Amino acid sequence: MRRVIAKSFRSVLAERRIVRAAGAHDALSAILAQQAGFDAVWASGLGVSASCGLPDASLLTMRDYLAAAEAMQKRVSIPVVADCDSGFGDNRNVTYMVHEYEAAGITAVSIEDKEFPKMNSFVADRQTLLPASHFAARIETAKSAQASDEFFLIARTEALIGGLGIDDALRRAHLYADAGADGILVHSKAKTGAEVEKFLQAWDRPTPVIAIPTTYPDWSVKDAERAGTAMVIYANQGLRACVSALRGTYLAMAAQGSSASLEAGLAPLSEIFSLQRLAEWQQVRP
Amino acid sequence: MRRVIAKSFRSVLAERRIVRAAGAHDALSAILAQQAGFDAVWASGLGVSASCGLPDASLLTMRDYLAAAEAMQKRVSIPVVADCDSGFGDNRNVTYMVHEYEAAGITAVSIEDKEFPKMNSFVADRQTLLPASHFAARIETAKSAQASDEFFLIARTEALIGGLGIDDALRRAHLYADAGADGILVHSKAKTGAEVEKFLQAWDRPTPVIAIPTTYPDWSVKDAERAGTAMVIYANQGLRACVSALRGTYLAMAAQGSSASLEAGLAPLSEIFSLQRLAEWQQVRP
Amino acid sequence: MRRVIAKSFRSVLAERRIVRAAGAHDALSAILAQQAGFDAVWASGLGVSASCGLPDASLLTMRDYLAAAEAMQKRVSIPVVADCDSGFGDNRNVTYMVHEYEAAGITAVSIEDKEFPKMNSFVADRQTLLPASHFAARIETAKSAQASDEFFLIARTEALIGGLGIDDALRRAHLYADAGADGILVHSKAKTGAEVEKFLQAWDRPTPVIAIPTTYPDWSVKDAERAGTAMVIYANQGLRACVSALRGTYLAMAAQGSSASLEAGLAPLSEIFSLQRLAEWQQVRP
Amino acid sequence: MRRVIAKSFRSVLAERRIVRAAGAHDALSAILAQQAGFDAVWASGLGVSASCGLPDASLLTMRDYLAAAEAMQKRVSIPVVADCDSGFGDNRNVTYMVHEYEAAGITAVSIEDKEFPKMNSFVADRQTLLPASHFAARIETAKSAQASDEFFLIARTEALIGGLGIDDALRRAHLYADAGADGILVHSKAKTGAEVEKFLQAWDRPTPVIAIPTTYPDWSVKDAERAGTAMVIYANQGLRACVSALRGTYLAMAAQGSSASLEAGLAPLSEIFSLQRLAEWQQVRP
Repeated sequence: MRRVIAKSFRSVLAERRIVRAAGAHDALSAILAQQAGFDAVWASGLGVSASCGLPDASLLTMRDYLAAAEAMQKRVSIPVVADCDSGFGDNRNVTYMVHEYEAAGITAVSIEDKEFPKMNSFVADRQTLLPASHFAARIETAKSAQASDEFFLIARTEALIGGLGIDDALRRAHLYADAGADGILVHSKAKTGAEVEKFLQAWDRPTPVIAIPTTYPDWSVKDAERAGTAMVIYANQGLRACVSALRGTYLAMAAQGSSASLEAGLAPLSEIFSLQRLAEWQQVRP
Repeated sequence: MRRVIAKSFRSVLAERRIVRAAGAHDALSAILAQQAGFDAVWASGLGVSASCGLPDASLLTMRDYLAAAEAMQKRVSIPVVADCDSGFGDNRNVTYMVHEYEAAGITAVSIEDKEFPKMNSFVADRQTLLPASHFAARIETAKSAQASDEFFLIARTEALIGGLGIDDALRRAHLYADAGADGILVHSKAKTGAEVEKFLQAWDRPTPVIAIPTTYPDWSVKDAERAGTAMVIYANQGLRACVSALRGTYLAMAAQGSSASLEAGLAPLSEIFSLQRLAEWQQVRP
Repeated sequence: MRRVIAKSFRSVLAERRIVRAAGAHDALSAILAQQAGFDAVWASGLGVSASCGLPDASLLTMRDYLAAAEAMQKRVSIPVVADCDSGFGDNRNVTYMVHEYEAAGITAVSIEDKEFPKMNSFVADRQTLLPASHFAARIETAKSAQASDEFFLIARTEALIGGLGIDDALRRAHLYADAGADGILVHSKAKTGAEVEKFLQAWDRPTPVIAIPTTYPDWSVKDAERAGTAMVIYANQGLRACVSALRGTYLAMAAQGSSASLEAGLAPLSEIFSLQRLAEWQQVRP
Repeated sequence: MRRVIAKSFRSVLAERRIVRAAGAHDALSAILAQQAGFDAVWASGLGVSASCGLPDASLLTMRDYLAAAEAMQKRVSIPVVADCDSGFGDNRNVTYMVHEYEAAGITAVSIEDKEFPKMNSFVADRQTLLPASHFAARIETAKSAQASDEFFLIARTEALIGGLGIDDALRRAHLYADAGADGILVHSKAKTGAEVEKFLQAWDRPTPVIAIPTTYPDWSVKDAERAGTAMVIYANQGLRACVSALRGTYLAMAAQGSSASLEAGLAPLSEIFSLQRLAEWQQVRP
């Protein structure tokens, strides 16, 4: 029995008009994302920290996020795109980060133009951006650290999150693309896709642009494709579905003193076994 | 801001007529189990291995299961009962296991009378039991390895799972209790609670008895209490609820090209932040 | 067989006129430090990073340093004092650090008044200190994060390392002691102990003062005690001895094509077994 | 700055008349082995467990041994050959082991024909061998688990260690080679190389043979090459040199109350910095 070997993110991006990525917080959610037909997995910093019960505020270390991303990548053949926050420190940390993620078989990572430690973009807290030139130098450093041309570096700008406006987002994205970023993630917390669409209309580089429609869920894949987006990431819906399901299930069991009424809505054990690829493992004679 | 300090399992057992434990597969599910009112968390071997996309067959190591249990215990104030499979090897491994779990702040563990490597009890595969005397010696070894009287060792018999019948289950449980086990987990895959009830009727020791009504969900906490059970464990319902929710959510997003229609059913980000205790962390000025 | 339970650092400090700590880079070196009679182990950041072949520049994460310190503490009954660099980020990271180290059974940690990421104090590189008031607030935050009164927080000032002079070192140390630091580590790269002695002469608080005579090895424990030092740390001599020994041994084996001429100088396997406490483990019947 | 990319073991074996491997217990010792001119590093199970202060008796898990081997391989460009004991369980564990080691960039592993948990070969304890046919099937399983033809599997027979004689060692080695082993490690605790030489004289397969002259250090590389050995492993001399050096250094510091008299024999800090490749890291502007 052989292990799963994944496609690189670059190869998937080349194949698709638009890449649809689903956020995962563990290997199990990554497997289910692949089974549902997604093209890539987003190893979500919010998801991994929430799975540990800690804020998405650089409390967990690179080691933890890497372990989570690696655990996902080992179980899916679609590529994992690792959310690497602001790069875990300074340019030396970013260099080490590239070494470690690349060695672990992760073919795409995203870093954002915020200070370390970071705070989740949707939290009302300091969202201090790095000077754009500083982050552009970080991109250069990161790109010079990769061993394989296959490695894909996403520069994520938090200019819109930080309220700096589209012009600043564009200025930053241009600098980052010119510094060698392979992709630009323009993060927005607007209620509609209009902000990101404006960005895309003004975007004049070949570097692909990525969006995360968490706060503007009405903006569909078709909308995104029409606007020229290269990838959309459904970053946290899986996590949020788990929370709802867990809360409902635990509350009902606690209230009813039994799981009987819930059984029909729960995946059977046979489905768990299948997700674990048990039958394949059982073919290995002990 | 201080860390969470948990109650010991022994203290919770002493306080309750019957302890209700919910299975968790990560810290997040453990937090939700506590919030729903459960008295304890079962750090499920099936759950942890499924979360990693691997069979519940001793592929993950003690290190992995311990890390998962520890991550749970750090986020809840109810005790985590760690599913330690067959003890990860021989009696020396069990000794090391007790050292490691106790040092990590886990106050209760369960080991079962099967060989290492084990296979999940609900899988049609070899379910080879250890000779009862051999496992009784293991119990003695484990108890002599604990540093604190607070540590609680559950001896789980797979006699019913292995088709050996109630008499053998009782014979084994007596041996294990006499060897120093603090609790007896009698695992059954019957469709009703009758098998476990028969066991309980014949049980004549003060050692508390524990049940896992996975295959007999109609057997309620009231039934369990009436029959003399000290703890019921809802071992995998949370995991199975997550799988259903993830599959449904990912499939719908993939089909619809958007999460718009799902949003109402997903926990909002504010709920995620609350589970991460973000407000409390934000009170620490950076 | 029970695990090793260590004394707290606070209790050892109370017992001794002067505490002598030896730097360790792994559990084995910690065991040897204890066997040689040292009162405490310094889980050296330089040592742990060197053991991994990486610079002492915050490349390894808190997770790695904690794992190393924990592995040491599990094998010795003298306390491990963990070198925690500049605290791994901001005050929230320091809070998390205190939670994690305390939960792991580490009873003393040291943080220094430099920015994250840090660079080793003996390296000619930026050694940017935090504003003293900023670091004093960090000390307060750290102290408010501890769960047990037993926890001991050392505030290390790099004022002398950074060339800011004794007056600034004293000013800082006073602020840190007033903020609640349990000990002050005054680090110096002078060639003699005179600089640290001047500091000690002017020190007028009850807070114990600690020194690391790496660059002033002629300053003996007697000198340190006479000057009023509470602890001396031999931070890296063990590591440097290993490097010399490894280089010599490997070079000789490579040159001679055999280890024959070296055997007399190598610890026999029986000594390795003894350090592993093999006989005790063998008494656990498998 | 790019990470170190290592040669595969197979390529090194093809280039050399005889491969000389040095045992390492951490990345630092691996780096020093490479600098001394060795062709490969042996990630020693004894060394890694001793470094953690635990017996070489399968107490540490695959996760720990893998982490140690991976940490070494990341810092050297010569290949790491990982000592994988008896394979960490049954054939499914061996399959998982191959997946994990291969994914971590380890190009050669060794498994031995003993039961799990194992005990170090030089310890007077049970040294129960698996039936040869059982271990041959394990070899087949392991080979069918590799993803790359580059992966190299060493079958280590403990027949001589277990007192079963040369005929049995040969019988087993033949079976293992026929089952697909890429190399045969014939372990011996004789005082001279005669036993291994007899084995080599009778060996009639193309599969390369490997020796570990721990107890017969007079048997030189020249002797080994003349006898037809493909690789010699100096498995534990580095570890034993460290123990001698650490003990001597700590004892002298404790007795003298200073490191002054030892300084001349200790590697200077500049040498530590060089081993950490500090200058190269400093070229990355923060």
